[in-house]
Amino acid sequence: MKKGEFARFWAEREARTGLVNEHGSLNTKRFLALDSATYADGELSARTKELMGLVASLVLRCPECVAYHLKQCLDAGVTTPELVEAMDVALLVGGSIVIPHAREALETWLELQKK
Amino acid sequence: MKKGEFARFWAEREARTGLVNEHGSLNTKRFLALDSATYADGELSARTKELMGLVASLVLRCPECVAYHLKQCLDAGVTTPELVEAMDVALLVGGSIVIPHAREALETWLELQKK
Amino acid sequence: MKKGEFARFWAEREARTGLVNEHGSLNTKRFLALDSATYADGELSARTKELMGLVASLVLRCPECVAYHLKQCLDAGVTTPELVEAMDVALLVGGSIVIPHAREALETWLELQKK
Amino acid sequence: MKKGEFARFWAEREARTGLVNEHGSLNTKRFLALDSATYADGELSARTKELMGLVASLVLRCPECVAYHLKQCLDAGVTTPELVEAMDVALLVGGSIVIPHAREALETWLELQKK
Amino acid sequence: MKKGEFARFWAEREARTGLVNEHGSLNTKRFLALDSATYADGELSARTKELMGLVASLVLRCPECVAYHLKQCLDAGVTTPELVEAMDVALLVGGSIVIPHAREALETWLELQKK
Amino acid sequence: MKKGEFARFWAEREARTGLVNEHGSLNTKRFLALDSATYADGELSARTKELMGLVASLVLRCPECVAYHLKQCLDAGVTTPELVEAMDVALLVGGSIVIPHAREALETWLELQKK
Repeated sequence: MKKGEFARFWAEREARTGLVNEHGSLNTKRFLALDSATYADGELSARTKELMGLVASLVLRCPECVAYHLKQCLDAGVTTPELVEAMDVALLVGGSIVIPHAREALETWLELQKK
Repeated sequence: MKKGEFARFWAEREARTGLVNEHGSLNTKRFLALDSATYADGELSARTKELMGLVASLVLRCPECVAYHLKQCLDAGVTTPELVEAMDVALLVGGSIVIPHAREALETWLELQKK
Repeated sequence: MKKGEFARFWAEREARTGLVNEHGSLNTKRFLALDSATYADGELSARTKELMGLVASLVLRCPECVAYHLKQCLDAGVTTPELVEAMDVALLVGGSIVIPHAREALETWLELQKK
Repeated sequence: MKKGEFARFWAEREARTGLVNEHGSLNTKRFLALDSATYADGELSARTKELMGLVASLVLRCPECVAYHLKQCLDAGVTTPELVEAMDVALLVGGSIVIPHAREALETWLELQKK
Repeated sequence: MKKGEFARFWAEREARTGLVNEHGSLNTKRFLALDSATYADGELSARTKELMGLVASLVLRCPECVAYHLKQCLDAGVTTPELVEAMDVALLVGGSIVIPHAREALETWLELQKK
Repeated sequence: MKKGEFARFWAEREARTGLVNEHGSLNTKRFLALDSATYADGELSARTKELMGLVASLVLRCPECVAYHLKQCLDAGVTTPELVEAMDVALLVGGSIVIPHAREALETWLELQKK
């Protein structure tokens, strides 16, 4: 997403989630419920799992997923140096095609921190 | 694509296809011809193949391909509950990274239906 | 898988599923349950959804998933010419990297048919 | 990227690279340095490697990577018919999901050539 | 890999790494050195990074990478319930195509634990 | 593939191609014909295109495609240092998940050279 677009992204995400809840099947809703349940505190902390979700989203190059997990990581108290090391794992594993996503992620992260 | 951008997307697609037809090689054109031929009625109906093309485009996370197959599915008479079940297969097979594409697909679908 | 290995593959799959059921979490089991539920008859027939699952597995190049859906397609009465057209969609959408998987799928399919 | 957006893309890329240089770790910087070093003249010419980078970026469907390698290919003296043949390899290997990226690449290429 | 093949896999890996060290370029060696450096203790523990590497390897479906990170996770003291939760994140994010890899990973993990 | 298995792989490939030619549709055959045509000498040499096909196959992690292009590269007179630089591009672009494929490719390459 372009600089400064996080709020627009979030509103779009909410509106579209509303459409999915209205038109989705029982299986659609089960999938979304499982999405939330998977990141809850358990044997691993929610914080660690959100960082894992971030790394997975970076190597799979899903900008919306990256933006979502950045928000969750910030709320979970992840620091910038920790974020950078998670990004390093994603860069190494996923290669240079992850660079544009890592660059965008860092920009979004710094914006979210300022708020 | 953002809400309400389908017409812009389609015009851009047409203009760019023009450039490919002008500058492409014989092999480029063979590939594009095969792209059309593959979805024609045969042992499986064009309708079923368009739904398959939609599922494949969702799991491979190609927004332009998704938008194209949504248009073809609508023209082939696919209903919203059928579309939702195709999306469910894509979500299950492709995982949560497909969610942003499924959300966008549903928004585009509902817009296309209104026209 | 190599020629004639379907039975071995299936037994390995069963044994490993046993390990997942023994050691998996509640969320692991929810995911597996959703996997089954998604292919049930609904707005689209199980037959159509299995073909979709096959196309998705081919373009994502998952040999075990392909083998599984081939078995389901056979049980659902899919014919060889229908299978070939589903493979054509996968080849076109996913490109030449799908060829080795399509070749293997056809070999497995013809073996399964003989039984 | 939309028509005419190359300059905006390039400026955004520069700004974000600045953020990565400011906040990145030693490993982040090593990765970026290796990215540059890999495309230098060696046993294969930089020109050939940039074309390889373009094909890899197309099949992995990374629009920013494609735009970057197009610029490098232009600077290395690649001709339009050569570019088209590289695109043909990418289309064939990666399939129809590469088409939107090939179309966009051609549009960007023709724009860059005019400057 | 098939049951009981971890030792064979590891020996093959060692032999092939020898070939890469013998024939690789300076850039090949830099890449491999960066691979090791990225998982060292830092702002995040090596343990957490190995789990991230495992999740990334599962969603990208790289069996050799999964086997390698399982070994590293075991050496770092990861428990089976923690491993299962990491697998759950990978299943959710990457979808049902990850299931065969998760099943194989669990089998390998239990074998490694017995030694 | 395991060490020394190239001949077995090639025979399996031939046998399966026979099945595809027997059971495939007109579109299946068009796709395979286009696969051959794309790598012919043209604006770019067949040699350069085979190296591009190798890089694309490595970053998409298709072992059969890699083995095939290695054979074509050998027949086209590619040298080991050139091959290594092509592998370096693939490692950099595709990341550490390409390492197992690069290792296997190098082993296969050295075997093919000895014959």
